[in-house]
Amino acid sequence: MNFKIRAASKEDCKDISRMIMELAVYEKMPDQVKISHEELQRDGFCQNPFFQCLVAEVPEEQKSKEGCTVVGYALYFYTYSTWKGPTVFLEDLYVMPEFRGKGIGKGLLSKVAEVAKKKKQCVHLHLSVLDWNTPSRDFYAAKGAQDLTVTEGIHVLRFDGQNLDNLANEAPKD
Amino acid sequence: MNFKIRAASKEDCKDISRMIMELAVYEKMPDQVKISHEELQRDGFCQNPFFQCLVAEVPEEQKSKEGCTVVGYALYFYTYSTWKGPTVFLEDLYVMPEFRGKGIGKGLLSKVAEVAKKKKQCVHLHLSVLDWNTPSRDFYAAKGAQDLTVTEGIHVLRFDGQNLDNLANEAPKD
Repeated sequence: MNFKIRAASKEDCKDISRMIMELAVYEKMPDQVKISHEELQRDGFCQNPFFQCLVAEVPEEQKSKEGCTVVGYALYFYTYSTWKGPTVFLEDLYVMPEFRGKGIGKGLLSKVAEVAKKKKQCVHLHLSVLDWNTPSRDFYAAKGAQDLTVTEGIHVLRFDGQNLDNLANEAPKD
Repeated sequence: MNFKIRAASKEDCKDISRMIMELAVYEKMPDQVKISHEELQRDGFCQNPFFQCLVAEVPEEQKSKEGCTVVGYALYFYTYSTWKGPTVFLEDLYVMPEFRGKGIGKGLLSKVAEVAKKKKQCVHLHLSVLDWNTPSRDFYAAKGAQDLTVTEGIHVLRFDGQNLDNLANEAPKD
């Protein structure tokens, strides 16, 4: 199968938005998606974008059953380690089911690694996965990822909703 | 105790660098720190900085045994959720041992929440902790943080060193 990986443009946001929803359905949390393609355009294609995105595209004659040619995406952003310097976080990596097993996921992942090393001299690529998502965990492990939750005991914590509001409201005055 | 929380300046990087090392010693990995204060200056105080930082400062008459008045820091950066939009990640939160228990850590954390909500409309504040670090886990739990590794089964994965090089070298050609 032919496919091409390229930087996403503003015009890809409808496709990216559609695939964000497909991924959320797979992750069993579709009702959590609150972001529209207009918000993706605003947040990713402005002067200081919140994220970067690559898409995988197939030729017209290999389009999906539904008529899509943009069949996968990798959305990432630059982060920072106070021990090592610039790093990159891969927020989402997704390939539509009928296009799996053809090297597209690996291509997207490798391209993020290449871009992050070349453009920003990133020393780590990190990401998170859900523990029941064995296909993804196996995919990343086969490519050399270390599971820091297992080897170093890293836990991820989150403040949101009322808890985040409470924190913010209790901030010391300037 | 009087303390003031303010945005870090380039001139604070020596103090921040010293405290990054103190935190790494506490985390039992001091040999992992490869970043100098000059690199912090370059990466945090340029046109598109990799991170933002707040510091906590005490008056001269309350300085530490070693003569420091900058006694804590919170280093963070903006991230993105494809479900919810802009988010913020707290990479490091540290207060020197002799200044703990006085509300400085809480002050720094709250200020990050306030700034992230006001400036970027962030909907989450997330961070990671090591499982043996009970004082930190208790601190965050008491303020309302949810442990996503426990409640949702989130694992953190990382590619680095040769594994990251291998990925990057295998990227499809443009």
